[in-house]
Amino acid sequence: MPSKLNIYNSLSRKKEEFQPLNPPFVGMYVCGPTVYSDAHLGNLRTFTSFDIVYRYLKYLGYKVRYVRNITDVGHLVDDADEGEDKIGKQAKLEKVEPMEIVQRYTNGFHDMMSQFNCLNPDIEPTATGHIVEQIETIQKIIDNGWAYEVNGSIYFDVKKYSEKHHYGKLSGRNIDEILEGTRTLDGQDEKKNSVDFALWKKASPEHLMRWDSPWGVGFPGWHLECSVMSTKYLGETFDIHGGGLDLKFPHHECEIAQSVGADGNEPVKYWMHTNMLTVNGTKMSKSLGNSFLPHELVNGDHPLLEKGYSPMTVRFFMLQSHYASTLDFTNEALSAAEKGYKRLMKAFKEVQSLEFGVGEVSNEINDLIIKLCKKCTEDLNDDFNTALVLANLFELSNKVNAFANNQLPISSVSRETFDLLQKTFKDFIEDILGLKADEDKGGDGKLDATLSLLIELRKKAREEKDFATSDQIRDQLATAGILLKDSKEGTTWEIK
Amino acid sequence: MPSKLNIYNSLSRKKEEFQPLNPPFVGMYVCGPTVYSDAHLGNLRTFTSFDIVYRYLKYLGYKVRYVRNITDVGHLVDDADEGEDKIGKQAKLEKVEPMEIVQRYTNGFHDMMSQFNCLNPDIEPTATGHIVEQIETIQKIIDNGWAYEVNGSIYFDVKKYSEKHHYGKLSGRNIDEILEGTRTLDGQDEKKNSVDFALWKKASPEHLMRWDSPWGVGFPGWHLECSVMSTKYLGETFDIHGGGLDLKFPHHECEIAQSVGADGNEPVKYWMHTNMLTVNGTKMSKSLGNSFLPHELVNGDHPLLEKGYSPMTVRFFMLQSHYASTLDFTNEALSAAEKGYKRLMKAFKEVQSLEFGVGEVSNEINDLIIKLCKKCTEDLNDDFNTALVLANLFELSNKVNAFANNQLPISSVSRETFDLLQKTFKDFIEDILGLKADEDKGGDGKLDATLSLLIELRKKAREEKDFATSDQIRDQLATAGILLKDSKEGTTWEIK
Repeated sequence: MPSKLNIYNSLSRKKEEFQPLNPPFVGMYVCGPTVYSDAHLGNLRTFTSFDIVYRYLKYLGYKVRYVRNITDVGHLVDDADEGEDKIGKQAKLEKVEPMEIVQRYTNGFHDMMSQFNCLNPDIEPTATGHIVEQIETIQKIIDNGWAYEVNGSIYFDVKKYSEKHHYGKLSGRNIDEILEGTRTLDGQDEKKNSVDFALWKKASPEHLMRWDSPWGVGFPGWHLECSVMSTKYLGETFDIHGGGLDLKFPHHECEIAQSVGADGNEPVKYWMHTNMLTVNGTKMSKSLGNSFLPHELVNGDHPLLEKGYSPMTVRFFMLQSHYASTLDFTNEALSAAEKGYKRLMKAFKEVQSLEFGVGEVSNEINDLIIKLCKKCTEDLNDDFNTALVLANLFELSNKVNAFANNQLPISSVSRETFDLLQKTFKDFIEDILGLKADEDKGGDGKLDATLSLLIELRKKAREEKDFATSDQIRDQLATAGILLKDSKEGTTWEIK
Repeated sequence: MPSKLNIYNSLSRKKEEFQPLNPPFVGMYVCGPTVYSDAHLGNLRTFTSFDIVYRYLKYLGYKVRYVRNITDVGHLVDDADEGEDKIGKQAKLEKVEPMEIVQRYTNGFHDMMSQFNCLNPDIEPTATGHIVEQIETIQKIIDNGWAYEVNGSIYFDVKKYSEKHHYGKLSGRNIDEILEGTRTLDGQDEKKNSVDFALWKKASPEHLMRWDSPWGVGFPGWHLECSVMSTKYLGETFDIHGGGLDLKFPHHECEIAQSVGADGNEPVKYWMHTNMLTVNGTKMSKSLGNSFLPHELVNGDHPLLEKGYSPMTVRFFMLQSHYASTLDFTNEALSAAEKGYKRLMKAFKEVQSLEFGVGEVSNEINDLIIKLCKKCTEDLNDDFNTALVLANLFELSNKVNAFANNQLPISSVSRETFDLLQKTFKDFIEDILGLKADEDKGGDGKLDATLSLLIELRKKAREEKDFATSDQIRDQLATAGILLKDSKEGTTWEIK
């Protein structure tokens, strides 16, 4: 019996069989970036992980509506509803309109997503684009008795809510512990309890981003937008909600409280969280100076990096870990990933050009290949274990190489198995893992074609002992940044 | 004395010297696409024209804030405030959420802009992202007495407005003629006069896009967003407002009335309009079947097109006409543009690799080159006449070719003139006209390098009468889609 998709649900803390609420439709919401600076590597890892989820669900035939928001207002510097708006602060620093900051970093984020081959979500709503809806939801929460107004701001009454509902169910925190852990209220604070959070904040005179509301001029609280936009586009209850682990508390916990507070419904069936990044075993953080940006990783432009790695190498590297494990960046691991990625793509190219021939089938080989192909699906069904999928593809690559080098006759497998092998490579590498040939190989295969011709001419020159010509070809290519590598199997080339 | 920038102002119907309201700042607003289908060629022409304006103003040292909106609600199928919302209609047809339509075509539009090398605007606001602001503006207009409510909809009272203000000043239309020209009101119509236009429309039960407002659930009228967003991001009066000629009436006329009605100010100092497209002399229109999309033009995928043209060829082609002239698409003109574009880019490459050498200066040549370089600026200052700029660059290209082929000694010009020549090519081609080498030439110049090597090896083979090798090189490249062309000056290559 074919295996079924199982997802580790952060809410239940166990793997559950995936059963969408309204098949064949699947609604998925992922918390997107706050666009006040370049997207960081943690963003990239999170969105790449959910790109796999999106691709695989579509591959399985579901009609997925993938919503990933852009936070362009309300995310304050301090998580405790204090401090400046992150975007407003950056706008003041650069002396521009906040929406110019939003535009610049949204464009940059999109460029990055495209560079790393992440598919676009179906809807990419913005917080400022849903002020009316946010005001309506706040009014509902007030009407239901879960929020209160103080001096033009509206706060969610977490303590009152927690008397009837389980605040802390997602993060596993206890309301009393949270109350003890948060700083005590000083006389300035207008909240009833430190655990309460803002749904709407009154705008001070110097606050740049501001809208009129029934409670005066202000701006929405950061947690609100995700509840409002997921409800608008996916309904009061939807299938999958994803985000980085750092968002589990308080952001996602607050989202649950807001939805229950507004509609009385649990908003999400499956909660998924991606884990954090480390560098050489240490948590990656700006303050430690050990965090690099995606473009620095690609250009090798950071003291901790020995060289740059192509976007597809980085993508491959990230997929070598399960999304729920921490991911450690080291030069050794990245270099190994670069080699691994090239090896995999070489096998992919080879398997596409193999031609089937009938002969005597080896049951052993045939069964092994079928097993490995099936295991790709099983491993992905096991909470999207891309690390194991890649391991299977490498085992399969060994067989592909053997076929390509005539060490193993292609007829060792049946026509059906041969087709399955080709399809498995194509489906998993291209469609599901979203890997593709590195772009620096030149447009349209034309560089490939010219280099094949040069390698052929060089071989002929060497056979004719015309070493001047063969050296000229090698040297001029080296000057252009192209290395020729000779081996028993022939000559290959790579970009330096 | 250096010439100054003059702009043809559609409002005054004459060329005026450009004097920004608050130098060095310039505010520019351009009406963006309604994202319910693929952007059409008219959009491309308009946004490329204003890309030149944006680039040139920045080049002149102005700090430009360029705002180009995305219309994602309120644009109805029928201009007379009737019919379905264009996006809502498409969403119903495809059975998706309207915002999925918006997302898809916004992404497609961005891809197209990037393909044709148009710079991103500084802010790209959406109509749905400014519902609160639109409601506030409507309230102001009502309070000022220029709008009235009927059954949950708000209409601008054009007749009343025109008693005090000049409605029709931009389009040159007379209010009585407009009233005669529009269809008479039937009993169903709730407007006081057929010339009135909607600021807010009550949403019928089946209308998908809807927001709460002081007048009930509805959606904003199409004209309103541009007034509201230009005011929000550029102020009540700003420098330049651009758009296609088809928007002059009623859209831009209504914008003026809305701004005057809300704030009492004329909103725009310089109105600019791009002209329409024709195909083989006939107006391009969907109903005539003679309109092709930008990607069809690039792929050659339309019965009227003999072949495809690269995005840069198309850009070059468009810049060969003044933005305020109609632009006629014919296969002959496009093919000629393709040749012209290649010739220009060849000269650009040559001028960059020229090296100066001292000798006897020819005053005639020297003066001619200075004159042509200066004329590039003068022509652009004359209402952005890109057609004449290109003509100057071609005249300069002839001299560059003569230098490159040693028909003219480089020492005919002074060091200063030589620098001016190089700078003029770089500034105008790259920075101002936004032309760049076609991308299909292969990554990073590596294809260039390998092909130079192959051309060299082929030359050697022919000198050694090794025609087998020289033919092999030519034939294998032809198979790969690369044509070698021999001439007196040597061998060049091009992508088929």
